[in-house]
Amino acid sequence: MLLQYAVVANFTDFGLYSPVYKVIIHHMNIHMILLSGGSGKRLWPLSNEIRSKQFLRVLGYGSGGHESMLQRVFRQLRAEFSGAHVVVATGAAQREQILSQLGDFVDIVSEPQRRDTFPAIALATTFLHDRCGSPDDDVVVVLPVDVFTEQHYFTTLGRMCEVVEAGGAELVLMGIAPTFVSSRFGYMVPGEPADGYAHIERFVEKPSLELATDLIAGGALWNGGVFAFRLGYLMEIVRSHVGNLSFSDLHETYGTLEKTSFDYAVVEKATSVAMVPYDGMWKDLGTWDALAQEIGPQGIGEQLLSASTEGTVVVNELEIPVVVAGTRNLIIAASPDGILVSDAQPGSELKPLVDTLKHPPRFEQLRWGTRTVLERAQDRQDTAGETRVVELAALQEAPISCAMGTNLIMVCSTGRGSWTIGGDTRQVEPGTTIRVAGGASGVLYSGEGLRIVEIVVPNVENV
Amino acid sequence: MLLQYAVVANFTDFGLYSPVYKVIIHHMNIHMILLSGGSGKRLWPLSNEIRSKQFLRVLGYGSGGHESMLQRVFRQLRAEFSGAHVVVATGAAQREQILSQLGDFVDIVSEPQRRDTFPAIALATTFLHDRCGSPDDDVVVVLPVDVFTEQHYFTTLGRMCEVVEAGGAELVLMGIAPTFVSSRFGYMVPGEPADGYAHIERFVEKPSLELATDLIAGGALWNGGVFAFRLGYLMEIVRSHVGNLSFSDLHETYGTLEKTSFDYAVVEKATSVAMVPYDGMWKDLGTWDALAQEIGPQGIGEQLLSASTEGTVVVNELEIPVVVAGTRNLIIAASPDGILVSDAQPGSELKPLVDTLKHPPRFEQLRWGTRTVLERAQDRQDTAGETRVVELAALQEAPISCAMGTNLIMVCSTGRGSWTIGGDTRQVEPGTTIRVAGGASGVLYSGEGLRIVEIVVPNVENV
Repeated sequence: MLLQYAVVANFTDFGLYSPVYKVIIHHMNIHMILLSGGSGKRLWPLSNEIRSKQFLRVLGYGSGGHESMLQRVFRQLRAEFSGAHVVVATGAAQREQILSQLGDFVDIVSEPQRRDTFPAIALATTFLHDRCGSPDDDVVVVLPVDVFTEQHYFTTLGRMCEVVEAGGAELVLMGIAPTFVSSRFGYMVPGEPADGYAHIERFVEKPSLELATDLIAGGALWNGGVFAFRLGYLMEIVRSHVGNLSFSDLHETYGTLEKTSFDYAVVEKATSVAMVPYDGMWKDLGTWDALAQEIGPQGIGEQLLSASTEGTVVVNELEIPVVVAGTRNLIIAASPDGILVSDAQPGSELKPLVDTLKHPPRFEQLRWGTRTVLERAQDRQDTAGETRVVELAALQEAPISCAMGTNLIMVCSTGRGSWTIGGDTRQVEPGTTIRVAGGASGVLYSGEGLRIVEIVVPNVENV
Repeated sequence: MLLQYAVVANFTDFGLYSPVYKVIIHHMNIHMILLSGGSGKRLWPLSNEIRSKQFLRVLGYGSGGHESMLQRVFRQLRAEFSGAHVVVATGAAQREQILSQLGDFVDIVSEPQRRDTFPAIALATTFLHDRCGSPDDDVVVVLPVDVFTEQHYFTTLGRMCEVVEAGGAELVLMGIAPTFVSSRFGYMVPGEPADGYAHIERFVEKPSLELATDLIAGGALWNGGVFAFRLGYLMEIVRSHVGNLSFSDLHETYGTLEKTSFDYAVVEKATSVAMVPYDGMWKDLGTWDALAQEIGPQGIGEQLLSASTEGTVVVNELEIPVVVAGTRNLIIAASPDGILVSDAQPGSELKPLVDTLKHPPRFEQLRWGTRTVLERAQDRQDTAGETRVVELAALQEAPISCAMGTNLIMVCSTGRGSWTIGGDTRQVEPGTTIRVAGGASGVLYSGEGLRIVEIVVPNVENV
């Protein structure tokens, strides 16, 4: 057995709902593939084309701090699988944000284009096989990064690994105990329960509410989109789809792969598929009402609420205060991109409204820090130019570049560091001004951290 | 008669409510003193310590434009009295804003400190007597600048001048026809109506609602705080209070003057006092609900309201959009100073809440243009430094100054002009960077208008 574990709690009950065990993984032969999905504006103005919901640092953690969904999942994962190898499968646009939030503790497999879940998982498993040299017997767990769950969810992942290891099934899914009748999810109907798991008799995709009621009464669980299998099992399926490609070749030809889901390409065709149940909190937090409920009445950011204000949640990322007087059941969110004031149940009105906005995003989280647009001629329907502030964390390097036809003037307001453009290297301290001509590029290095104000101006021929 | 007028409409009815006349003033021997009151935060975040409600450009005018209460009163005044001399009596802090909004068409008499209305009017009349050399027979009208009225209000001012000219009374007030029973106003009980005016039998300050009901039934009018008199009449009263001081001496000793109202010092002691009635729109617009009603559902600034939103008024001074979904009866206002979301009837909760805010104002309107803070270390409880954008109108000059202990870096983003510091004068164009050392000062001149980003950084000893 490659997977070794220590039982630290009761192992007495192996029925379908028996969360009372604790597995500590001692070794490295387990790989977690976190699927970090695409961007969207459903949580505008916090989320935008480049900032997805999983990166929003809005979840309370510790004494007053906040973490993102990504950071929370990673922290929960590490608490359960201290030695596991973590790979984040994502689009190229998210790479910098993931590095900024998780540091270098993870591998990132960037899809050159967004396809569907099967190509994404195929690319990540080929990475494990080809680049990491992981043996076919290694266990792989695939899970979404934008779920909000209890620690017990991660204990359940351990149980899924066990079932794969013990040969209970080739493919093991997580079954989520339904908490309400829904026609939005896929349902899995279990067969006879075995040792803490059950083979799946059949899948029912998005049933009617009537059918869903019957399914739940019959013991069906929701498909949580979590999969465990041996690496070799999936590599065989991958080869049957794309041939025996190296990681580089698969990456190269990624855009030509068929857009198909893992459920369709793998799960529905699997002959030996089981599920391990999870009975606990499992939320999406992908809509404002769900997120606001999690954030709670204390809100985030600077705000003043009058005594008569009720059920109003404020998330304020700006430096200026939000003052609320006498409102009921509202969600108020302010970011560099805009201000939202919405009924606590925004429904379907919000997305089409936000989709009509033409402003490019003003806030970007990058590997080395953040970049925020402070004012932009385009947003005033004015002539060219913008002012932004970039903040580098300590000991980082950020690219300097200036588009043709413009000049960039950088002014250091706090911190120390240095910059290099061409062969020229100079020190940076508060008050240092750097002039970058159109087309030029270089590098900025932070020592203790740097705050730089950047002003982009149209290029004027100097006499 | 010094005052000459041309009758251009019916002059047939001289009863108390006879607005059907039109006076065109042909000469200069009439002076309008506009009382521009203090600052306040009741319209926060649009108004602040330095921006009073009368300066907010929120009143619809022409096709889509907006004007301030000050600009509206001045425009209405000019339409009625094209040749009248206008003096704005105000605190020193408002001088630049008044010049910016009215240009050089008015005289400004700045009180060195805020006292009450009698000292303010005494200073302005002494200015007329002493600095302008106006004769005692000239007619003076004093009116508040923060009223929202119809043009007919200004026709009524003309009628008040007539009554003074004709010797109907030494002091003539405007009586506002009550539109509801209120205990907030002063009431004036008229005697027998004369030629379009009436002597006042008695004043009743802030009566109970019961008494107010009786007063209104008996024909009493509200005291509108508008006064007309001959200059010599008031100068005698001023001398009886402060002696025969020159304007300079009065200005010098202004801080020692007793804080007393014009009503108390003059009106209540007058022996020959009449009123001319005004029966039309007369609003304060000093609270958010009144202002929002005037602005109307189309709001001001960039905003998107969902179809299900009701009764919500948005005023947005920022470059970023406000998106509203499904709210009812709200006032939403966003400015560089902050964001307000309030029930449409904010009541008394708002002011104490806003009074606790510690941020200094971020937006300033100055004679030459505007200055807006974009980011400020203080608001982040961070180290020193701030970034602001200054915009100069065409052909203006603005002072350059840099506080000790800091350096100021100015970067031109649009426009052309020049700057002078010490003996050094240089051209300014997009991309020009000006470095100002702590303690230095100079002048910036705009040609076609200038947009400058200013970065204040702590002073670092350069090696």
